[in-house]
Amino acid sequence: MASIPHPLSALSMAETNRARDIVLAAHAGSVLDFRQLYVLEPPKAEVIKFLDLEHSGKLTASSPRPARCAQVFYDVIGGASKVQYTESVVDLDLGKVVDQKVIGPEHQASLTIYDFETLAQAVDRSALFKEKIAELQLPEGFEVVVEPWPYGAPDPADGDTRFFQALIFARDTRSGNPDSNFYAYPLPLIPVMDARTKEIVRIDELATGGKGDALGGRTHKPTVVDHCRDSEYVPELLPNGTRADLKPLTVVQPEGPSFSVTDGNLVQWQKWRMRVTFNPREGAVIHDVRYDGRPVMYRLSMSDMTVPYADPRPPFHRKQAFDFGDGGLGNAVNNLTLGCDCLGVIKYFDGVLTDAKGNAVETKNVICLHEQDNGINWKHTNWRTGRAVVTRRRELVVQFIITLANYEYIFNFKFDQAAGIVVEARATGIVSVVNIDEGKTAPWGNVVSPGALAQNHQHVFCVRIDPSVDGHENTVVQEESLPLRADPRTNPNGNMYEVRRTPVATSGGFDAAPMSNRVFKVQNAAKTNPVSGKPVAYKITPPPTQLLLADPDSVQSRRALFARHHLWVTRYRDYELYAGGRYTLQSKAEVGGVKDAADRNEDVLDKDVVLWSVFGLTHNPRVEDWPVMPVEMLQLHITPSDFFTGNPALDVPSNKDIGSQLTTGNQGCCAKEEVAIRSNL
Amino acid sequence: MASIPHPLSALSMAETNRARDIVLAAHAGSVLDFRQLYVLEPPKAEVIKFLDLEHSGKLTASSPRPARCAQVFYDVIGGASKVQYTESVVDLDLGKVVDQKVIGPEHQASLTIYDFETLAQAVDRSALFKEKIAELQLPEGFEVVVEPWPYGAPDPADGDTRFFQALIFARDTRSGNPDSNFYAYPLPLIPVMDARTKEIVRIDELATGGKGDALGGRTHKPTVVDHCRDSEYVPELLPNGTRADLKPLTVVQPEGPSFSVTDGNLVQWQKWRMRVTFNPREGAVIHDVRYDGRPVMYRLSMSDMTVPYADPRPPFHRKQAFDFGDGGLGNAVNNLTLGCDCLGVIKYFDGVLTDAKGNAVETKNVICLHEQDNGINWKHTNWRTGRAVVTRRRELVVQFIITLANYEYIFNFKFDQAAGIVVEARATGIVSVVNIDEGKTAPWGNVVSPGALAQNHQHVFCVRIDPSVDGHENTVVQEESLPLRADPRTNPNGNMYEVRRTPVATSGGFDAAPMSNRVFKVQNAAKTNPVSGKPVAYKITPPPTQLLLADPDSVQSRRALFARHHLWVTRYRDYELYAGGRYTLQSKAEVGGVKDAADRNEDVLDKDVVLWSVFGLTHNPRVEDWPVMPVEMLQLHITPSDFFTGNPALDVPSNKDIGSQLTTGNQGCCAKEEVAIRSNL
Repeated sequence: MASIPHPLSALSMAETNRARDIVLAAHAGSVLDFRQLYVLEPPKAEVIKFLDLEHSGKLTASSPRPARCAQVFYDVIGGASKVQYTESVVDLDLGKVVDQKVIGPEHQASLTIYDFETLAQAVDRSALFKEKIAELQLPEGFEVVVEPWPYGAPDPADGDTRFFQALIFARDTRSGNPDSNFYAYPLPLIPVMDARTKEIVRIDELATGGKGDALGGRTHKPTVVDHCRDSEYVPELLPNGTRADLKPLTVVQPEGPSFSVTDGNLVQWQKWRMRVTFNPREGAVIHDVRYDGRPVMYRLSMSDMTVPYADPRPPFHRKQAFDFGDGGLGNAVNNLTLGCDCLGVIKYFDGVLTDAKGNAVETKNVICLHEQDNGINWKHTNWRTGRAVVTRRRELVVQFIITLANYEYIFNFKFDQAAGIVVEARATGIVSVVNIDEGKTAPWGNVVSPGALAQNHQHVFCVRIDPSVDGHENTVVQEESLPLRADPRTNPNGNMYEVRRTPVATSGGFDAAPMSNRVFKVQNAAKTNPVSGKPVAYKITPPPTQLLLADPDSVQSRRALFARHHLWVTRYRDYELYAGGRYTLQSKAEVGGVKDAADRNEDVLDKDVVLWSVFGLTHNPRVEDWPVMPVEMLQLHITPSDFFTGNPALDVPSNKDIGSQLTTGNQGCCAKEEVAIRSNL
Repeated sequence: MASIPHPLSALSMAETNRARDIVLAAHAGSVLDFRQLYVLEPPKAEVIKFLDLEHSGKLTASSPRPARCAQVFYDVIGGASKVQYTESVVDLDLGKVVDQKVIGPEHQASLTIYDFETLAQAVDRSALFKEKIAELQLPEGFEVVVEPWPYGAPDPADGDTRFFQALIFARDTRSGNPDSNFYAYPLPLIPVMDARTKEIVRIDELATGGKGDALGGRTHKPTVVDHCRDSEYVPELLPNGTRADLKPLTVVQPEGPSFSVTDGNLVQWQKWRMRVTFNPREGAVIHDVRYDGRPVMYRLSMSDMTVPYADPRPPFHRKQAFDFGDGGLGNAVNNLTLGCDCLGVIKYFDGVLTDAKGNAVETKNVICLHEQDNGINWKHTNWRTGRAVVTRRRELVVQFIITLANYEYIFNFKFDQAAGIVVEARATGIVSVVNIDEGKTAPWGNVVSPGALAQNHQHVFCVRIDPSVDGHENTVVQEESLPLRADPRTNPNGNMYEVRRTPVATSGGFDAAPMSNRVFKVQNAAKTNPVSGKPVAYKITPPPTQLLLADPDSVQSRRALFARHHLWVTRYRDYELYAGGRYTLQSKAEVGGVKDAADRNEDVLDKDVVLWSVFGLTHNPRVEDWPVMPVEMLQLHITPSDFFTGNPALDVPSNKDIGSQLTTGNQGCCAKEEVAIRSNL
């Protein structure tokens, strides 16, 4: 059994290379440039049959299994720089391509690091670029740094041509340290490459003015970065070094972690059971989530995000990243090396990527799994007896981190002992800056370092939640707590409020309403909680955050329709995974995203439903965000609501002292104070 | 110097006893019952002068100091059960009472444990109560438990009479365990005591019906708890014991904590400096908060809270607690004994309470101070070099916990290395339940255990923020991010949004508006950030939570006017500390609370301002909240915004491995997987 991969597993190195071979054979005689190659998860109906066998203990070597399939995205390189972007599905069991389509010019293939390398090379060899740089009179010891970016939404005149743009910075090389922070020296140029010719076809010159200046036109002095200053963050370059008074705080798990990982991706911890896989589009994906043997969720993933910038000066409207869709996370994901990102006992998961030849490449430590303590979980003191019972809240964290040029996102899926799930996004890294003339300020950003304007922007995330609350047929019910007027018969003292429940009958988009305490319950109408008499449910509280601000008629807004509502409810369809649509790179509109799915107006009562939770951060940068910003945190909470017959964490052991000790006397800073070294079970 | 208490210090045991003696002497010949006795903080103008000397290093033994004063609350017991509730101020330096007033019948003195003991005794000896209990036919082995409560808002017929009420439960004694959970067996009786006569004057019989039943009238069977069932939470009574698969997770700080505590209450940690005191009304209070020598806040405290219940059936409208104002926290605060509530190295602070004779009584470990790790603080990877710099987010936590009969609140003031402050409230404990007939459900609550209906309710908190952002004259500015339509001249591509700033000119109440990304900045208009050119500021994001739902004309609502807005801005006045007013016990309306302060319509531009942040939790109980609920968390974030010239945490050392080790092989659950024991600096 162990040698047969689970249907939800990512492709192994061997499977990946086999898929490559099958595609190459299907295109014998052509040159192929591979973009992405990873598992195509089987149709849900087939997986469910398999899971039913698995969980009922009836699985045998001869049980039917869904076909192992790969989705393979690649360019077929023809003569005269003709490129056909092609998507194929390979059935690894049959050993052949079972589906193949050429994508038309209305969509762009997602980008790869090779696109970015091509761009960097094109800039390097561009005579026009050299000429523009020379005009900027960089100080001695500075070198030019090319920061590739997706092109964003094309202007109407751009048609369907594939472009890439680069932001340009200067690096002070005088320290001799390759990690000197070049973002402190933004240059007002954006070279644009035509991907067909691989040549720089245009260099956009950027306005550097501020409040009161025209939106375009050159205002900067010839010496464009002389008023900028070093903004280092690597410790060896900090003028005053690092603070010396932080003492070690160590997490020790002498008996190892409480979780187990078997079968490559099967994680079990504190009554939870789930599979954790990695793919280059979504990062970590959580499958088949069960608590104490009961299904909760079929699939949980980061579906999409968009980061539109609000500087009105062209071409900054083209600064709008879709960090999942534009290039996938594969090459942005951090390799979480030992000693960097987590405390305690860590389990790392590796991923499989592919190179331009389609060869499988192992990428190490792309997901980490660990436990953490998050304060008190529940406590009660019986004041009559003085007896206190306290338990700590232990969490299991599935984490991945991505770096997109200047910026980083930290994504956590956290599972707790009370059967709750928290999806957390932390934003950190270096805010995107552009050059601004000395002494000026601007209404569309904040000067965070002399000469560096951090532009206002938003981060809008979408988490895809495919629930299976005690089964796959679920109903989403909106619940609000609403004020009532006093009424002699029903509310004589005016203290009652109404809890109003409204089932979502048809697919659509819904908004947060915290002033009505609006929550959404995913119920299984066929299962009744024996205590409360209500349907078993999990509750989702949409984070009440600002939605996309761009004009609804703007291209920024049209290509991110998913960012118009806080919660979408759709009827499940295979392969419908990406809120912003499959093709976001250089898109002009969201196509095939969650808005289109919702617009099918399907019946979603007692059906296989999918919820898409949208939340974000309007980020008007502070000076404190420079040069690397302290994390901003956003959390989505998914909690049981009458799913169980009591607090699921009631049987968590209370705290116990392990090697607890009281220390009296000088503890460095705590002379004459009692301090205690404490620990917990 | 060390022997002279700091003006912000709480009273010592000796000072407390001295204040008692001075009051007793002033009432020679009378009998006094003491309710509360604690420091009266000096007028701010005097403290500021002292702090200016202290922080400029000019303080000497002969420097002027504000007088040490005590506020003393007590009953003067006259003949014929006449009681005069009196409030005095004692000047400890002068050795005399400097102010004294008798409080009229329109206000009630806050309750003490002696009031509750009197109530319990009155119930025990009430023949009427015995009669009513006998009617309920408790099963053999059950005993009656009396749970004293404040009376809530009086009904009009109650006049100004002081009452107390008791909820009644039955405890299954058959286990022989005194911590068997009696809340599982609610009895439908509420005896009411007249505090003047100390006799039970009435027993309210409670409705036990549900949906469709009349709001009053008896529907229960003679055997009122036979359909209830045991709901134990102490580990030794759990039917299946505790889970066995949770392995220890220990926080070790081998070099001790990074903080110091000197002068009794002066806490210094990671550039923060503040004083932490305890008083029996507010719990932990944070004073004179400075970061890197710059003032940020004069005082930070939990000001008030209210918990109204929404069951419309009389007398449940009288279930409305003000857990700070009704009795103060002094006797509700948990003694945080070693090994229970925190991990790592803990510093405990003791408090001073008084008994009915006014004697100082030390209460141990009422506040704890410790450090904790909260994930990644900032990270950036230079993808060109592969160099990642990561720092962890270390937090300093000032914590206190209160138990109010069935329920607990955990309050944290958290300070982080990026100069941010988080005020966190966690709600846990046992939800308040009443008896419900077998098989019934109700629209105003949820059946969480057979026969036990947990009533819908709200928890509304108020945090008082007295800022001193680089000085005491501050301005509050509302900032919103608002959509703009495309405009050929100013917003040609429709991607710009407006950041609109509106100073708060006049004291008043303001609301959260997350869809406009509304935040409030406390600015010092006289200090400009040299990088951004904006005034230095701290930002407060009001948590967008539901406000009080009760009918605005109801007494529940009128006595909690503070709960009508998310943020109040008022002009500072000495002794104006309590959002719900000084006298909440049995109040009919909020008097002298934040609404009255705001209604002065004072100029608050460049003035000494106070902010009052109101947030809460509408708690429609889940079955999972039974018998002890997993914490619900609420957080208020207070963060620097252009206060500094860069990320204040930039100089935090990156992670380093301390004794990091890779373990290969069987780690119990992780056979054949690499696991690592990790730690950080």
